[in-house]
Amino acid sequence: MAVQTRINTDDVAILLIDHQSGLFQTVKDIDVTALRNNVAALAQVAALENIPLFTTASEPNGPNGPLMPEIHALAPHAVYIPRNGEINAWDTPAFAEAVRKSGKKKLIIAGVLTSVCVAFPSLSAKSEGFEVFAVIDASGDMSTLSSQTTIARLTLAGVVPVSTVAVLGEIQKTWHREDALQYASAYTKVMPPYQSLIESYQKAISAGKEV
Amino acid sequence: MAVQTRINTDDVAILLIDHQSGLFQTVKDIDVTALRNNVAALAQVAALENIPLFTTASEPNGPNGPLMPEIHALAPHAVYIPRNGEINAWDTPAFAEAVRKSGKKKLIIAGVLTSVCVAFPSLSAKSEGFEVFAVIDASGDMSTLSSQTTIARLTLAGVVPVSTVAVLGEIQKTWHREDALQYASAYTKVMPPYQSLIESYQKAISAGKEV
Amino acid sequence: MAVQTRINTDDVAILLIDHQSGLFQTVKDIDVTALRNNVAALAQVAALENIPLFTTASEPNGPNGPLMPEIHALAPHAVYIPRNGEINAWDTPAFAEAVRKSGKKKLIIAGVLTSVCVAFPSLSAKSEGFEVFAVIDASGDMSTLSSQTTIARLTLAGVVPVSTVAVLGEIQKTWHREDALQYASAYTKVMPPYQSLIESYQKAISAGKEV
Amino acid sequence: MAVQTRINTDDVAILLIDHQSGLFQTVKDIDVTALRNNVAALAQVAALENIPLFTTASEPNGPNGPLMPEIHALAPHAVYIPRNGEINAWDTPAFAEAVRKSGKKKLIIAGVLTSVCVAFPSLSAKSEGFEVFAVIDASGDMSTLSSQTTIARLTLAGVVPVSTVAVLGEIQKTWHREDALQYASAYTKVMPPYQSLIESYQKAISAGKEV
Amino acid sequence: MAVQTRINTDDVAILLIDHQSGLFQTVKDIDVTALRNNVAALAQVAALENIPLFTTASEPNGPNGPLMPEIHALAPHAVYIPRNGEINAWDTPAFAEAVRKSGKKKLIIAGVLTSVCVAFPSLSAKSEGFEVFAVIDASGDMSTLSSQTTIARLTLAGVVPVSTVAVLGEIQKTWHREDALQYASAYTKVMPPYQSLIESYQKAISAGKEV
Amino acid sequence: MAVQTRINTDDVAILLIDHQSGLFQTVKDIDVTALRNNVAALAQVAALENIPLFTTASEPNGPNGPLMPEIHALAPHAVYIPRNGEINAWDTPAFAEAVRKSGKKKLIIAGVLTSVCVAFPSLSAKSEGFEVFAVIDASGDMSTLSSQTTIARLTLAGVVPVSTVAVLGEIQKTWHREDALQYASAYTKVMPPYQSLIESYQKAISAGKEV
Amino acid sequence: MAVQTRINTDDVAILLIDHQSGLFQTVKDIDVTALRNNVAALAQVAALENIPLFTTASEPNGPNGPLMPEIHALAPHAVYIPRNGEINAWDTPAFAEAVRKSGKKKLIIAGVLTSVCVAFPSLSAKSEGFEVFAVIDASGDMSTLSSQTTIARLTLAGVVPVSTVAVLGEIQKTWHREDALQYASAYTKVMPPYQSLIESYQKAISAGKEV
Amino acid sequence: MAVQTRINTDDVAILLIDHQSGLFQTVKDIDVTALRNNVAALAQVAALENIPLFTTASEPNGPNGPLMPEIHALAPHAVYIPRNGEINAWDTPAFAEAVRKSGKKKLIIAGVLTSVCVAFPSLSAKSEGFEVFAVIDASGDMSTLSSQTTIARLTLAGVVPVSTVAVLGEIQKTWHREDALQYASAYTKVMPPYQSLIESYQKAISAGKEV
Repeated sequence: MAVQTRINTDDVAILLIDHQSGLFQTVKDIDVTALRNNVAALAQVAALENIPLFTTASEPNGPNGPLMPEIHALAPHAVYIPRNGEINAWDTPAFAEAVRKSGKKKLIIAGVLTSVCVAFPSLSAKSEGFEVFAVIDASGDMSTLSSQTTIARLTLAGVVPVSTVAVLGEIQKTWHREDALQYASAYTKVMPPYQSLIESYQKAISAGKEV
Repeated sequence: MAVQTRINTDDVAILLIDHQSGLFQTVKDIDVTALRNNVAALAQVAALENIPLFTTASEPNGPNGPLMPEIHALAPHAVYIPRNGEINAWDTPAFAEAVRKSGKKKLIIAGVLTSVCVAFPSLSAKSEGFEVFAVIDASGDMSTLSSQTTIARLTLAGVVPVSTVAVLGEIQKTWHREDALQYASAYTKVMPPYQSLIESYQKAISAGKEV
Repeated sequence: MAVQTRINTDDVAILLIDHQSGLFQTVKDIDVTALRNNVAALAQVAALENIPLFTTASEPNGPNGPLMPEIHALAPHAVYIPRNGEINAWDTPAFAEAVRKSGKKKLIIAGVLTSVCVAFPSLSAKSEGFEVFAVIDASGDMSTLSSQTTIARLTLAGVVPVSTVAVLGEIQKTWHREDALQYASAYTKVMPPYQSLIESYQKAISAGKEV
Repeated sequence: MAVQTRINTDDVAILLIDHQSGLFQTVKDIDVTALRNNVAALAQVAALENIPLFTTASEPNGPNGPLMPEIHALAPHAVYIPRNGEINAWDTPAFAEAVRKSGKKKLIIAGVLTSVCVAFPSLSAKSEGFEVFAVIDASGDMSTLSSQTTIARLTLAGVVPVSTVAVLGEIQKTWHREDALQYASAYTKVMPPYQSLIESYQKAISAGKEV
Repeated sequence: MAVQTRINTDDVAILLIDHQSGLFQTVKDIDVTALRNNVAALAQVAALENIPLFTTASEPNGPNGPLMPEIHALAPHAVYIPRNGEINAWDTPAFAEAVRKSGKKKLIIAGVLTSVCVAFPSLSAKSEGFEVFAVIDASGDMSTLSSQTTIARLTLAGVVPVSTVAVLGEIQKTWHREDALQYASAYTKVMPPYQSLIESYQKAISAGKEV
Repeated sequence: MAVQTRINTDDVAILLIDHQSGLFQTVKDIDVTALRNNVAALAQVAALENIPLFTTASEPNGPNGPLMPEIHALAPHAVYIPRNGEINAWDTPAFAEAVRKSGKKKLIIAGVLTSVCVAFPSLSAKSEGFEVFAVIDASGDMSTLSSQTTIARLTLAGVVPVSTVAVLGEIQKTWHREDALQYASAYTKVMPPYQSLIESYQKAISAGKEV
Repeated sequence: MAVQTRINTDDVAILLIDHQSGLFQTVKDIDVTALRNNVAALAQVAALENIPLFTTASEPNGPNGPLMPEIHALAPHAVYIPRNGEINAWDTPAFAEAVRKSGKKKLIIAGVLTSVCVAFPSLSAKSEGFEVFAVIDASGDMSTLSSQTTIARLTLAGVVPVSTVAVLGEIQKTWHREDALQYASAYTKVMPPYQSLIESYQKAISAGKEV
Repeated sequence: MAVQTRINTDDVAILLIDHQSGLFQTVKDIDVTALRNNVAALAQVAALENIPLFTTASEPNGPNGPLMPEIHALAPHAVYIPRNGEINAWDTPAFAEAVRKSGKKKLIIAGVLTSVCVAFPSLSAKSEGFEVFAVIDASGDMSTLSSQTTIARLTLAGVVPVSTVAVLGEIQKTWHREDALQYASAYTKVMPPYQSLIESYQKAISAGKEV
C-alpha cells in the first residue's frame, strides 16, 4: 500500500506556479524570504540538471504582480506558459500539454497558494497517472492552519509532500561530482546558517595550517 | 487507494453547523474574526452559484447564542433546519433528509466545534456514501491540539480536509467569467492583505498612466 | 478503506493509564490543568453512563507519584489494576484480561505519556481486534514534536485519534435527556470559557425578563 | 518624576503618519487587519469629537502606496499634508506648523513604521514641549523585536506609549452620553469579539422577555 | 529616584474593576481561567487579612455581563459600588470617595481591560498621592501588544506593576502563622502545578513512613 | 491495512546518520541540546541490549564537522562506516550491506536532516522490505514546516514515525529487571524534568522516614 | 540619573534563593534545564573567584523539595542559611546579617520565583543601600507575563536586571588568564550550542594541520 | 529627565563588535540571516556617509570564528582593532582610544552577544560621557529572555535602544538626495518584503503606462 516516493532525476519535471510578488503578501505560513530562496534553489538545480521547468502566472499585469525574476534568471531554459484565467494551471490546455510532452512521469510542484495553486494541479496530474511531489516549503499559504490542512488533503490523495532540501538531495545523489560546489551554493540558499558554518570552517582550517 | 477529492460545483451542497455567537467564545485554534470571514465567504459563493446551503444550530435561544447573521444575509436561499437536541446534526431526521433530497453527492461541511459539529456529520455522511469535504478554517475548535487531532481522525476516515480558499477556487474554476469581481470580494474576506494589494495596484496603475 | 470510527456508548470501555502527579511534570504538549480537567470529564461521563473504566499506574509509591485522585472520586465504579513493572499496560495479564472480560469491542484510551502509555496498549489492543480511540488531549507527552509524531504513528496503525470533547459528544448523543445538566458540567471542565458564557447568558435572560 | 500621562479631549490633536497600503507589507508585529481597524477607530473618534487630525504620506505615488482610504472617509475634517521626501514628518515645515497652529498641547501619534514614522516626530515634538502619546497598536513595525525596542526608546524619552483602546476610553470618558452607540461601533472595530458578545446578549435579552 | 514599592498589609486596599463575564471574551493576553483564578486568590487573601476590597462594574445588566461571582463569594466583606457610565472608575465620586475613606495609602488595582479599567484609575490615584500597584496577571487586555504597552505606560508614571503571586507573598510575609494552609490554597489557585507537587509529596512521605 | 508497528528488541538495528556538530547549526525544529540527549539515550540503550548500531557521516573532516562523540562513547560496540559522498547512506554499498548482514528485519533510523538523511535511507530500506521506524525527535530538520512535511511523507510510505521515549519503552518492556537504573538514567536524558522529580521524591521519602 | 550598573568582582556577593526541585515544577518562563545550568554556572564562577555565595530554602523537607545539589557541589564554600518560614529571605535576620557581614556592597540575586524570591530581597537590599543585580535567567517565574511584570517592577526600583552570561563576562573580564578553560566550561553550561562549535573547530583545526 | 535621543550624522561613530560566524551559532533571539542583513545595512550606510566605523573580534582564529566578511566589504574605510582577550572591547586601550580620537560624541553600538559585547562597552562609554545607541536587532543574544533583560538594563542606564531601521532613517533624513537609491538598497536588506513591493509597483507602473 505504501506510495512509491522517490524522485528520479531522469524522469522528472518541475512546475512553479504563481510565485508572484503581489501574492507573496498573502503568504503567512512561511517567511517570504525563505520561500523565495527555496524556489530559487529549485530553479538553480533544474538548470544544473537540465530538468524541464515550467512556470505560469495567473495574470502578471494584474494586482497579483509579476513572477519573481529569480526563477527565469537562474533557469534560462524554463518555459513560461500564460493562462487565460484558469485557477488550476492544469485546466490550461497549453500548460498541461507542455508538461505531458516533456515525457516525464514524475512532477515536482510548488506554488502560491499551496491550497489552490499547488493542490489543484497536483490532484489533477495525480489522477492522470503522474507521480506528484508537492514542495511545501517552496510554496506559501494564507495560514499555517491552511497549509497543514492541505498537507493532509494531498497525503490522502497519494500526492507526496516533500521539503525543498529533500528535492535537492534526491536530485544531487552524491557529493562526488564535478558540480558539487554549485549544489553547495543551492544549499546555502535553503539553509542560510550553512554560510556561517563554512566561514568558520575555512578560518579554522587556515588556523590549523598555521599551527 | 487515493481518495478522489475534487469539488464539483454542480454536485455539491454546503452544510454550516452551529456557527453561533456564544460558541465562538470557546474557539481557540483560529482567530474568530478570520473564522467568521471564512464562513461568510462560503455563504457568498453558495449564493453566487446557487449551491444548496443548509444551516442549523443546537439551540439558538440558549447560551450558545444565535447563528452569526452574515450567513443568511449573504445567502438568502439558505435553509435553516432546527434540531431537537441532537448533537450530531445528521441524527436530526429533518436535516439529513433535506441534504439527501438536494440530490448532491458531495458535501462541504463546516461548523463549531470541529471535533464535534463537523466531525460527527462528516463521518455519518461519509459512511452513507457521500464524498465529504471538511473546511477546517471555516470551523473552530477548542484548541490547536484538538483540531490537529480531528484532522487526523477525518483523514483516516477518508473525509477530505480542505481550506476555505480551496473551496472558493475549486468552485470558481476561472477568472474568465462575468461575476469575477464578486469572487474577488470573497477572496478579500478570506485574505485581508489582498485589500492592501489591490489599493497599491490601483494607485500604481493610475501613477503609470500619468507618466 | 476508511476506518470505521464512531464511539458507541453501549460497546465501549475507557482505559486511563498512568495519570500520575509526578509524571505530569514531564508533560509539555498540553497545560497540565487542562489535561487533568479533560481526564476528570472522561471519568465523570463514564460514571454517568456506567461505562467500564479501568485505571492503572506504573508504581504509585515511586517518584511517578499517585494517580490523580479526581478519577476515582468522580467514577467510584472505576477498577484500579496494579502492574508489576510492565511499561505497556496491555502486557500486564490482569489488566488486559479485565478489559477483555468487559466484553466491549471499542476502547477509549488516554494516558501519560502519549508516546508510551497510550501508544503501546492502543497498538496491542488494535492488533487484537479492538477498535481503539486515543484521546490525545486527555493524554500528555514530553513535547509537541513527540505527540505530533505519535498521532501520525497511531493513525498509520488504524488507531483513531480523538479529542476529549468529541468523546463526550459521541457518548451524550443528545441534549434531550434528563441528565443534560451533568453533561453541561463536564463540558465546562473541558471548555472553561463556557462558564463565562453561561454566566453572561443567565444575567441577560434575567435582564430581559425585567424589561 | 512620574510623567503626567492623561489624554485631554479638549487639548489634543491626532497625527496619522504613513499608513500606506504598500508599507503594510513590511509590518510584522501586528496583524494588518487589526492595525487598519485600530487606525480607523482613531479616525472615527476624531470625527466624533472634532479633534484635529493630520495625515501625511512619504510618497503616495511610489511603491509605498496610497494612504489607507478609511482615514479620510471616516474623518472628513482630516487635513492631508504632503511631504517633500523628509522621513521625519516633523522635519516638513508645513506639517509641524499645521500641528502647532492647532494650538493643542498634547499629540496622539501613530504610523508605519513605529521605529521611524512614529518615533522620530514623537521625539521631535516631545523635545519641543508637546506631551506625546504614541499609539503602539495603531502603528506597525518590521518585527516584534523592533517595536519592543522602540517602546523602550520612547519611554526613556518620556513619550507615553498607549494602546488604541486606551485612547478611545480616555476621549469618551463616559457611556452616559448621546453618541454612546457610535463609540460602541468604534470599540467593535478594535475588539472584534465584542460583536459576538452583543449578538449573544441581544438574543438572550429577547429570550428572557419571552419567558 | 527609585520608586518605593513594597506592599504593606496594614495600609492597603484592593480595587477589582470590571471583571465581568462578557468582557472576558475580549481578553487575549492571558488565559481566562488563569485570570479568574488569580482574581479569586486576591479576593481570598483580602478576606483572610480583612483588607478593604472594592468592586465595581461598568453595567452588569448590559452585554459586558455580571461580575465573576467568585469575588464576593470568597470575600463577603467586599463592597460593590455601581457606576453611572464613567469609564474610569475613579471618575465615579462614590467609588473614589469610598477608597479614600478607607484611609489606606496604598492601592492594589486589577481589572479588565488593563489598558483602560486598570490604567485610568491607577493614574488618577497615583496623581492624587496614592502608591499604586497594578496586578498585571489579575487583569486582562485585548492583546499582548496592548498589555506590554500599558506596562510601559504605568511604569513611566511611577505605578508599580506586580504579579498576583507577589501580592500574595508580600501580604502573607511568613509561613509561620496559623492560617498558612489557607494561603497554600490561594497559591494552588495561582500556580496549579502546585497541586500535583503536593500530591506527589504526600504520597512520598507516606511511602517513606512505611519503609 | 494498518501497518504493523511494534519494535522488537531481538530483531532490530539502530542507524544514526550524520549527527555532526556542524550540521547541528542548521537544525531549527528541535533544541539541539534535546536532540543530542535523545541520540545519546538511543546509544546508551543500544549498548545495554547489544542492539547493532551503525553510524556514518557525510564527510567528518569537512564543514559538517565530526560526529557527536557521545554516540561511540556510550555505545563502544557501534560500527562507523564512512561514505564516499553519497547523500543517501543506503546508496553506500558498505553501509547497506553491513545493515543487511546484521540479519535484523526492523530498523530504527535517526539523523540530521530528517528530510534527507533520515527520509532517504528509510524509504530505501522500506522498499527493500525492512520495517522502518524513524525517530523524529532524535533527528533534526531545517524548519518545523520541513519536518512536519517529512512526517507526512514517511507515513504515506508506511515508515513508522516514533519518538525517542517510545523507542526506549518498547525496548525496555518492564521495570522488573536488573538494569532498571540504567534505563532510568536514559529517561533522565530524554526528559530532564525527571531529575527534579527524583530529587524531590528522595527528599520526601527521607523526610517521611524521619516522621 | 542613570543607575551605575557594573559588577565588580571584588565587591560582590551572590545570593541563590529557593532553587528547589519541587518549586521548579511551577516555573514556566524558562526551560528548567536551562535554568539549572545557569544557576550552576553562577556557582562555578563564585567558586573560581571566591565570591561569597549564600543559599537558602523555604523548607527543604516540605513539598518545595531540596535545593538543587549542583550549587553546593560546585561551590563548596557556599553558606546555607535556613529560614523560619519567612517568604522574603531578607526578613530572616541570620540571612541578611550574613550578607551584610560579607562587607560587599553589590549583590547578585537569583531565585525561584522571580516575582517573590528574587523581587522581595532585591527591593529590601536596594532600599538598604546595596547595589542589586537580579539575574533574570538564573531565576524562574510562573509565567512569562509574570516575569515581564517583575522586570518592569525591579527596573522602576533601580534594581538592575542582568542575564547570566553578563554576570559571567563582567566577573571574568578577560580571556587572558590562567583559568580561562574553567570559564569556557561555565559558558558551555549557559550556551549549549557552544559545545558543537568547539567540536567543529577542533576537528577543522586538526584537518587543517593535516593539509 | 527625558534622555536626549537623536542620532546626528555629523557627530556619530559606529562600533560593530564580535559579529563572528561561530558566535552566531549561540544567537537565539533573532534569525541569523536577518541579523547579518541588519549589520550589513549599517556598514553600507556608514560607507555612504563616511561615518567612522570600528570593528573588533574577541579571537578570530579561535572557535568564535572570523568576522562576517560583509562588514569590511561594504565599508572599506572601517578600521579593525584586535583585542588581547578583553571581553569588554572598551577595556582594550587601542579600541577605546580609537573611538575617542574620532572626536564623535555619539556612538552606535551593535554586537554579539547583546548582554555582553553590546552592554559592556555601551555602559562604559555612557559613563564616560558618550551618548550611546544600542542597535538591538543588529545584535544577537542567547535567548529572548536574555535580550529583553538587557534592553531593560540598558534603558535603566540611559543607553538608548534603537532598531536598525531607525538608525538608517535618522542618518538618511530625506529621500530628496542624490544617493536615495543606495538607501533603498539598504532598506531592502533590512526589510526583505520591500523587494516584492518594488517589483509589484514597477510592473503595475508599466501596466498603467500601457493602458
